[in-house]
Amino acid sequence: MTGDHKQGAVCIFGTGDFGRSLGLRLLQAGYEVVFGSRDPKNRAILPQGSKVMTHTEAAQTAQVIFIAVQRDHYEFLTSLTPALEGKVLVDISNNLKRGQFPQSNAEYLSSLVPGASVVKGFNTVSAWALQSGALDASRQVLLCGDDPQAKQAVVNIAHSLGLTTQDRGSLRAAGEVEDIPLQLFPNWTLPLWITTGLSAFFFAYLLVYDVTYAYVEDGKDNFYRIMIAVPNKLFPDVSLAMLALCYLPGALAAILQLHNGTKHRRFPDWLDRWMLCRKQLGLVALAFGLLHVLYTLVKPIRYNIMHSGDTGVIKQIKENVTKPFDNTEAWRKDSYYSMGILGFGMFLLLGITSLPSVSNTLNWREFRFVQSKLGYLTLVLCTGHGLVYGWNKFLKPSRYHWCLPPSYMLSLVLPCVVLMLKLVLITPCIHHRITRIRNGWEKPGKNQGHHTTVSLGKATSL
Amino acid sequence: MTGDHKQGAVCIFGTGDFGRSLGLRLLQAGYEVVFGSRDPKNRAILPQGSKVMTHTEAAQTAQVIFIAVQRDHYEFLTSLTPALEGKVLVDISNNLKRGQFPQSNAEYLSSLVPGASVVKGFNTVSAWALQSGALDASRQVLLCGDDPQAKQAVVNIAHSLGLTTQDRGSLRAAGEVEDIPLQLFPNWTLPLWITTGLSAFFFAYLLVYDVTYAYVEDGKDNFYRIMIAVPNKLFPDVSLAMLALCYLPGALAAILQLHNGTKHRRFPDWLDRWMLCRKQLGLVALAFGLLHVLYTLVKPIRYNIMHSGDTGVIKQIKENVTKPFDNTEAWRKDSYYSMGILGFGMFLLLGITSLPSVSNTLNWREFRFVQSKLGYLTLVLCTGHGLVYGWNKFLKPSRYHWCLPPSYMLSLVLPCVVLMLKLVLITPCIHHRITRIRNGWEKPGKNQGHHTTVSLGKATSL
Amino acid sequence: MTGDHKQGAVCIFGTGDFGRSLGLRLLQAGYEVVFGSRDPKNRAILPQGSKVMTHTEAAQTAQVIFIAVQRDHYEFLTSLTPALEGKVLVDISNNLKRGQFPQSNAEYLSSLVPGASVVKGFNTVSAWALQSGALDASRQVLLCGDDPQAKQAVVNIAHSLGLTTQDRGSLRAAGEVEDIPLQLFPNWTLPLWITTGLSAFFFAYLLVYDVTYAYVEDGKDNFYRIMIAVPNKLFPDVSLAMLALCYLPGALAAILQLHNGTKHRRFPDWLDRWMLCRKQLGLVALAFGLLHVLYTLVKPIRYNIMHSGDTGVIKQIKENVTKPFDNTEAWRKDSYYSMGILGFGMFLLLGITSLPSVSNTLNWREFRFVQSKLGYLTLVLCTGHGLVYGWNKFLKPSRYHWCLPPSYMLSLVLPCVVLMLKLVLITPCIHHRITRIRNGWEKPGKNQGHHTTVSLGKATSL
Repeated sequence: MTGDHKQGAVCIFGTGDFGRSLGLRLLQAGYEVVFGSRDPKNRAILPQGSKVMTHTEAAQTAQVIFIAVQRDHYEFLTSLTPALEGKVLVDISNNLKRGQFPQSNAEYLSSLVPGASVVKGFNTVSAWALQSGALDASRQVLLCGDDPQAKQAVVNIAHSLGLTTQDRGSLRAAGEVEDIPLQLFPNWTLPLWITTGLSAFFFAYLLVYDVTYAYVEDGKDNFYRIMIAVPNKLFPDVSLAMLALCYLPGALAAILQLHNGTKHRRFPDWLDRWMLCRKQLGLVALAFGLLHVLYTLVKPIRYNIMHSGDTGVIKQIKENVTKPFDNTEAWRKDSYYSMGILGFGMFLLLGITSLPSVSNTLNWREFRFVQSKLGYLTLVLCTGHGLVYGWNKFLKPSRYHWCLPPSYMLSLVLPCVVLMLKLVLITPCIHHRITRIRNGWEKPGKNQGHHTTVSLGKATSL
Repeated sequence: MTGDHKQGAVCIFGTGDFGRSLGLRLLQAGYEVVFGSRDPKNRAILPQGSKVMTHTEAAQTAQVIFIAVQRDHYEFLTSLTPALEGKVLVDISNNLKRGQFPQSNAEYLSSLVPGASVVKGFNTVSAWALQSGALDASRQVLLCGDDPQAKQAVVNIAHSLGLTTQDRGSLRAAGEVEDIPLQLFPNWTLPLWITTGLSAFFFAYLLVYDVTYAYVEDGKDNFYRIMIAVPNKLFPDVSLAMLALCYLPGALAAILQLHNGTKHRRFPDWLDRWMLCRKQLGLVALAFGLLHVLYTLVKPIRYNIMHSGDTGVIKQIKENVTKPFDNTEAWRKDSYYSMGILGFGMFLLLGITSLPSVSNTLNWREFRFVQSKLGYLTLVLCTGHGLVYGWNKFLKPSRYHWCLPPSYMLSLVLPCVVLMLKLVLITPCIHHRITRIRNGWEKPGKNQGHHTTVSLGKATSL
Repeated sequence: MTGDHKQGAVCIFGTGDFGRSLGLRLLQAGYEVVFGSRDPKNRAILPQGSKVMTHTEAAQTAQVIFIAVQRDHYEFLTSLTPALEGKVLVDISNNLKRGQFPQSNAEYLSSLVPGASVVKGFNTVSAWALQSGALDASRQVLLCGDDPQAKQAVVNIAHSLGLTTQDRGSLRAAGEVEDIPLQLFPNWTLPLWITTGLSAFFFAYLLVYDVTYAYVEDGKDNFYRIMIAVPNKLFPDVSLAMLALCYLPGALAAILQLHNGTKHRRFPDWLDRWMLCRKQLGLVALAFGLLHVLYTLVKPIRYNIMHSGDTGVIKQIKENVTKPFDNTEAWRKDSYYSMGILGFGMFLLLGITSLPSVSNTLNWREFRFVQSKLGYLTLVLCTGHGLVYGWNKFLKPSRYHWCLPPSYMLSLVLPCVVLMLKLVLITPCIHHRITRIRNGWEKPGKNQGHHTTVSLGKATSL
């Protein structure tokens, strides 16, 4: 660092949105900023305090050059080869869709200007985040490149702009880094497909069980039930099934480890992928649970409920009977409401704990306590809610329409299986064996040829 | 770095809360801490391990001196001029209100001790945050100063205390930095004024339409409706209007860009300011939506609802009629409840996504998908909720009180306008033109004399 | 930094989960990684690109050596003393329970290899966080050690892995750092005990007041009320009492300061501890408030409520009376519902503001505004909700069962006391005096022998 008032000069090729925002930010951080432009006279739109020169002149002023032009225009850089010799070129470009070009932009740039050190980076940061210093936008710069000194120069610039950096390795990783801004919730794909599948199944089932049956058998036009009554069975059914799907892979992993007698054997790919999307499965289940709560709470102000309530009273009057108080029914209803509310409250707690800023403040033991102990408590409460709701109705033939059981019975299968597996796994002798395996013990004869498990951290979390 | 066990010495003038907390933190980070005090003998309250000297002696021990005294007492520093020559003085002071003094404290300090390099900073960090290392308090140090070496020295200290830093430029920016801790939700001022204005209008309107009308025309004392019935119309009306106000500026910006034929023309100031407070508008709309949900759900346990329900049944009995089941009414009610619940659920999702720690994990494409696609879906659902709620009632003269339409009709105007504008903007030919403009294309003859738009990032977000 | 493509070599002793994850991460960040192993031939499970050697050979390749073996196996290190002379040993171990050994692992390691500089650290970071780079796991490395150069070397490594660091002082602090991953919500212990105590008291009280009384006096079997009716009195009662407990210590602190005439006298320990758990008290109160909301909203679909509604109508018909509309009752019910909903809404706002990522974006003035001004508004609304709910029932002898008042009267005592104290404290003359004291003024004769208050930041927050 010299006694000079500037941090040094940085050059930017290109005067588009991103180039200008970056220039402004660099000026604020105390850098001298030189734009390289085809038309250096037109400087009206550039941030105050910056300089504009031809590309060749600009390149000579700085060691680090940001290439803020589109890939289509990279070819003009070949004419600047002598001026770019030994410089650090930062490729900040993004593509419009994945796999648009066989070679990543950064590798293409490197092949055009072999004498320069190309670093891929800054493409995951938006012009908006740069300009506003907004805390609510991603401020992580992913970098890759073959020359560590060049990378370090870019890291230094990023840090002085208040950004964090993550090294993603050599320039071969550039394609991957360029794909990141094009991703649309990659971790959510599998959980959303599962949700869609389950929802479609339950919707079709309920349409037959609830609406079509009444229409065919009794000639009743119940189609308005599609708006609330059917969704309000679909949501809890899917929610409960998905909550069970969160905890099933953990139990399966434990069984596999017991069977293998070691924790160092890789899990099958499908199990790994399943375990990695448990958080998303849980959040969808929570969202469906919330919808179930709201759909249930509007019940008393729905037209058909109010109408049938009135009709019931009028009927009692006309027939001059008064229904006696049914103590069992009071117990049953209050019990399953209570379990449902407590289960939903616990579920909300799990959801809040999975917010990044909250889970960041938890240590590993606390995170496991919440996600495993409280998670199973949630599953127990919600399963109990379903079981008490059902009560002895599974015995009544009138509840079977065309031999189909009510949908909640189907949705209770998975949770009951998971809870029974868990009950087996926490019996002292089996629990002791799993703990030993997870602490590194191996069944004799198992200690050769195994591989690192990909998800070692996760596997031990449940 | 020497082999010495200390990171070096830092001097603090002043032994108030902040000075002591800072001293403690510096000691923990391995610095030698020397307090300068008028009364060096009184050291009872100072953190253990620190030294106390007279100001002149203390100044000689360290290169960086934190001035933790109030501006009123700065004048004694003039007597120390020789000892402070070439030192870095960190001005950490705050004022009690904005614009209390014509000159910022740091500039005043610099004029008193011209031989020292003054750096403004640490004033945004509380003693509490320093002492507790709390993660739930701002840990960003905003710095400004004219001497980059002096600034770097302060940056180094801040980093070793676990704080992040942001450079805010030269000492001329000190006034701005000093104002930051005095701000009270500056981004919320405009949205809260809009909220207050809309709420006042709808409250007055409903008072006339709902309560006064019944009193004047029918002599009915409905004033208890002020507690729940009136707010439960006000909240959804204002919420829907404000949700529309979130999306209107984006549509207006697109129309302006279409009209200008370029994206490089600055938006009018009012539009810029409007666009910058969309998040706050949306959050207020969500809060009002939540209140609407809660006020609606208590309906069946309200006294007047229960009373009129009972009265209705008794009337049916006495007149010996039974109201037949109205299938259309069942459809209508279930439909608008369902749309309302789904709209509220989507709205909650938007709200959760705007939490800083969640939006940080999204890339630009995901953020736009949520805030734009899902945002418009929310608007469609909530507008649909209002329209189906209204149904054909806008045709019934009995619903117009003193020629005034029901309030929900007013609140539906804005959302319908926004949705129609959006429909026009997504027709293929117009959408194609906007996309070209946003990718940099300009209408011929438009490419001179334009200026950088201030909100380039935001403008493209909708 | 050399021109070499590697950042330098780092050595890891031990090939367990953590060692392998760390090795992988170091490789990704550009380090050369050398594992020291008893059995250097078995390298199947190690990350690609790393080397394996005997411990002695490995130690010679790097300056920094991570000791990723369990404490039980540390003794083998004594045989490597010559090879470890002058090296930096990073002790990353954790124990299974607190206080398992009299000496911390790191101090034990230091005593075994006195020639090396031991740094404790990385034990708070999980293998999972290291491997995934997950944003939703703690990424703060707490470090302690006696040699600042050794610490700095470890800090540099942590930073290049994208982790943040916090210096916790000398190696004597190692025991404390080792205990951190074993903590289970230490800040929540006191609030949860208070919650449990209050809940147990109110449960017993309500059991007597509500259920047993009806059984003994009227022979009514009301035991089903344990499921919803009793909890739905317990939750609001405990919630209100705990909300008051959040604000009581602030008022007590102000009274103490008034009495002492200075802010520099230490608060009693119990008050300090109480003040530090106010956030947790508030969050439990919010959770109980939410449960109260849900339990209340299911009221109209509960069996006993529906049954008694029907019975009431039938009775009116049979007796041929129609209850007139009671305007006061309509006012009372709507008022307390409205206050309850607004209070709950404000309470939710307080809860959202206490999320780490939200409170991080607030400055000190905004944080105080929300937690103090809006907090008291919440307390006023919730207390009003309770008072209007009670109305004039405290005058009716029939509401006293066996001379016991209804539980809500008990729960209203604390909030009313806090609000009255606050009213006194904000009278101009007293408020002026407190402000002066908090700005440093002291009552004459009070300025000697006092000590730093531990919670200076917090004390001024209310």
